[in-house]
Parts: sequence; structure tokens; C-alpha cells
Amino acid sequence: MEKRISGHTGLMGLFGTPVGHSGSPAMYNFSFQHDGLDYAYLAFDVTEEQMPKTFEAIKLFNMRGGNFTMPCKNIAAKLVDKLSPAAEIIGACNVFVNDDGVITGHITDGIGFVKNLEINGAPVKDKKTVVLGAGGAATAIQVQLALDGAKEVKIFNIDDKFYERAESTKAKLTEKCPDCVVTVDHLEDAEKLAQAVKECDILINATTMGMKPYEDVTLVDKSLFHKDLVVADTVYNPEKTKMIVEAEEAGCKAIGGVGMLQQQGAVNYELFVGKEMPLAEYQEFQKQQAK
Amino acid sequence: MEKRISGHTGLMGLFGTPVGHSGSPAMYNFSFQHDGLDYAYLAFDVTEEQMPKTFEAIKLFNMRGGNFTMPCKNIAAKLVDKLSPAAEIIGACNVFVNDDGVITGHITDGIGFVKNLEINGAPVKDKKTVVLGAGGAATAIQVQLALDGAKEVKIFNIDDKFYERAESTKAKLTEKCPDCVVTVDHLEDAEKLAQAVKECDILINATTMGMKPYEDVTLVDKSLFHKDLVVADTVYNPEKTKMIVEAEEAGCKAIGGVGMLQQQGAVNYELFVGKEMPLAEYQEFQKQQAK
Repeated sequence: MEKRISGHTGLMGLFGTPVGHSGSPAMYNFSFQHDGLDYAYLAFDVTEEQMPKTFEAIKLFNMRGGNFTMPCKNIAAKLVDKLSPAAEIIGACNVFVNDDGVITGHITDGIGFVKNLEINGAPVKDKKTVVLGAGGAATAIQVQLALDGAKEVKIFNIDDKFYERAESTKAKLTEKCPDCVVTVDHLEDAEKLAQAVKECDILINATTMGMKPYEDVTLVDKSLFHKDLVVADTVYNPEKTKMIVEAEEAGCKAIGGVGMLQQQGAVNYELFVGKEMPLAEYQEFQKQQAK
Repeated sequence: MEKRISGHTGLMGLFGTPVGHSGSPAMYNFSFQHDGLDYAYLAFDVTEEQMPKTFEAIKLFNMRGGNFTMPCKNIAAKLVDKLSPAAEIIGACNVFVNDDGVITGHITDGIGFVKNLEINGAPVKDKKTVVLGAGGAATAIQVQLALDGAKEVKIFNIDDKFYERAESTKAKLTEKCPDCVVTVDHLEDAEKLAQAVKECDILINATTMGMKPYEDVTLVDKSLFHKDLVVADTVYNPEKTKMIVEAEEAGCKAIGGVGMLQQQGAVNYELFVGKEMPLAEYQEFQKQQAK
């Protein structure tokens, strides 16, 4: 029976719309309880227009931290008091931490992805990378790769509205991370893509291709996979995309998208409470719940 | 392990300062979990000055309901959209209920007290009552007695700053509840007090006399207790005040203050969720926790 929430329990929360389906409350509340930390994490359905009032409420209720999701990540970056380096470059944040009324915005999509690469034996420092896509997750990954010392970030994107964002990311990174070479090219340019994949250490799919209902689509022909290539996907449904399967068959190190999400949660948790998240315990708990 | 709070869980809360010591979060969260209701109840330390922003947050977070405590009860009554009859007369509220963005303020101190009298076999309708005191709880009880059809409410208070409030309560009740005779007299007027106690059906102590460290103080001489008198106390620490002990010895029905608090919580719960609170189950849970 409930005995966890008292008059001293602090509130944390997720803001955006829709949020009802989010798994974050379950994950963080499990972790708080596991670690004996006196917080409760709830989800609040708010629109972009409601974000100024949301920030007033965050300060009023002295919320320690929380998350922003669509469509509130960009406006959040304008409302925080401080921004992490990645959040400043990207102009968006998915995490906030409240230190005595001073709210710092972070973006951890990229951090979680890179951390997952490292956990899987693929550190990014001094590495040549190719990133397919230029949406929100792709941009966060590109920025984090540059911040974490990658030698090259070669961005490929189709000729859609995000192409311009890729060029903007390149411009910002050229200024902020001059040691990292950033290029932007069209995904339709098969020759350039082939050349880049051949020469790179880490190939990352950050588009939705490979995700249901595009599970039969892969953007890079498997003939280009060389055995010292790391192939990583942001898509986690299916757990193994066609690209991941083909990379394994080619003898590459292949890293699927599930771990990125988990590591992002763990990074957030550490920002909130300064402790490592009990991820293995939560996964075990989820398994038991699913039975 | 925690599996109660999800992305759909609604927030309720207590507002005031200080609130950390409050037992309300434990009681309501137990009850929500017991009844399978998807709410979490937290306490928020806010000042009177922060109450306008608190109301914005209540609406923003779509909080179903909650409580106000000191020093926020009076300002709350000015900020709600609607007031219950008792809250309107008293100009204070300790409970709010949010119906699709319309916030109604209630005051349940008096309702809980009268409900506890009724549960203990002492209905107030058509009864002559004497109430000692004119503070917040005393006023709420006086108003509720009049609203619930008491024939007389005779208020006795010492010559302090609350005497004026008693006269104001009398004026309001004379207008709102013309069938109830309300009088105000000085507690120092021993003769008038003795006469009123002799003639009344229910004597209520709503002062702090009898509470530690005034546990040896009683305001009514036991020689005035007659066997068909009901003697009730708002003081619950000690559980049996000197007045209650003397009333029992005189053969009166004697009703201590503990039940009032419990019934108030139950009244609030019913306002929040439209269900009877699992009070017995919570008391059993508390006993087990105390072991």
C-alpha cells in the first residue's frame, strides 16, 4: 500500500501534449522509490502557449526537474534561465533542472545516443561519422558527436524542409566546434553517400526509415558495409531494423535504437538527482509486470 | 514497488505554509490507491502572495481538487470561481473542487464536526447549541450548525480580537439563516454562560482550552452538566480533554475532537471523488505502520 508520498515529497514532471501514453512517470517513479528518493513524477498536458505559465508553476511548486516533449521543446529553450552547450546550439531542451529557482535546460537525446554507443564499445572521439537525417533527434546527435570530439560529422538528408536545418547545424558547429568537420549533402547523391560510408567509422540512421511501416526500407546498400564499421540506428521498433540485421550479417558492430532511449532516461535521472538510474532493476520490474 | 503513477495520473494537492508535516498526502494517497483512483496528492509550500499564481497552476495542471491551509484559506475564497454556502458566509475555504476549469471553494471544518456529532448520535437539527470560541474552527462550526437547522447558536468568547468576528458571524447568520437564533456574549459572564449551558442540548468547546499545555483548563464547571446534555470538544490532544472526562462522569454523551478531523477528511474525499473514504482501512493501515 502507498506510503511513499508525504507532505515533503517533491514534484517532478513531463510537459507537452500528448503525454498520457508516456512511460517516463513509471520509469522515474520506480527509480525514485528504488533509491529512496522523495519525489513523485507526473505528466501534464500543456500546449506551447501554456509554457510561460508552466514555468511559473515549476518555480512556484519548486519542482526539482522534469522533461519537455513535443511540441514544447523549442519554446522551453527560450524560457529557461540557462542552457547546456548542446541545448544552446540546438535551441531546444527536453530536460530541466531547477537549482534554487535557477532553471537550466538540457537536451539529452544526443547524449543518450552517444552514451549508448560508448557502452557498446564505440566511442566517438576522433571518429569519422555519417548521420542520415536532420530532424530533431538527428540534430541532437550531430551536435553531441561534435561536442564529444568526433573528427567528422557528415550529414545526409533528402531535399525536404529539414535540409536547411542541417545547413544551419553545420554553420553553428563550424563556429562552436571548429575541430570537427561538418558537411551536408543530399541523401539522393548515391555516389557521395557511398564514398562517405566507405571512409567513415560510425554510420548512424536518424531518419524514420526502417521503422514500421517502413521496416523494409534501408538507406544504405549492405554492400557498403565494411567489417570495422559501426552501424547504429535510432529506430527501436522493430528492435532490429533491416539495416541492423544487414550490418550484423556483414560482421559490423551493430547497435539498435532501444539502448539510446534507456541511456537518455539514465542521463536525465543523473541530472535530476545526481545518481545512476537503477536501469537493470527497472527492466526486471517491467518484465515481471508484463507477465 | 511503485506502479501507481502513470502518464494519466491526475494531481491533487495541499497549499499553504508550512505543509511538510501534514498527514493529508498520506491519507488521500492511501485512499486513492485503495479505491483504484488515478490521482496523486502532494503538498506545496506557498504563501498568501503566491496564491494567484497557485490558482493559475491549479487550472494549468488541471488539478481535480485539493486543500488550502493556513495562511491561505481567506485569500483562496477570493480566488475561486464559486463558493459553497458556508464558505461564502465565512469568507474562507479549505477545499477546492475543479469541474472542467470552474473552481468551487468549500469549507469543511464545520461539516466534519457536525457529521461527527451525527455519527455519534447527536443530530443538530432543532437543537439549542452553545459554542465556546470565535476563531476559525469555531466560526465554521457556528455557521454549519445554523445551516443544518440548529434552533439556537449561543456564542461565548472572551473579550479578545475574535469577539468582533463572533458579532459579524451573528449578523451574517441572522440574514442567511433567519430561523436560527444567534447570540454573542462574553465568556467572562459566568451567570449568562451557566444559564445557556443549563438550557442547551449541545455544548461545544471550540477554543484551545483543554489542549496541551492547557490540559487542566475547562471553561464550564462540571456542576452545570445535565444528563441529557451532549458535550463535544474540538480539541483532540489529549484525546479526552478534562471537559470530556467530566462530561462522561456526569453521564452526558461526550464526543472528543478526533472524530471531527477524520470526518472532515472523509467529507473532503467525497467532494473530490464522489465516494466514501476508506477511513477504517486507513486507520488500520496507520496502526500497522506504527508497529
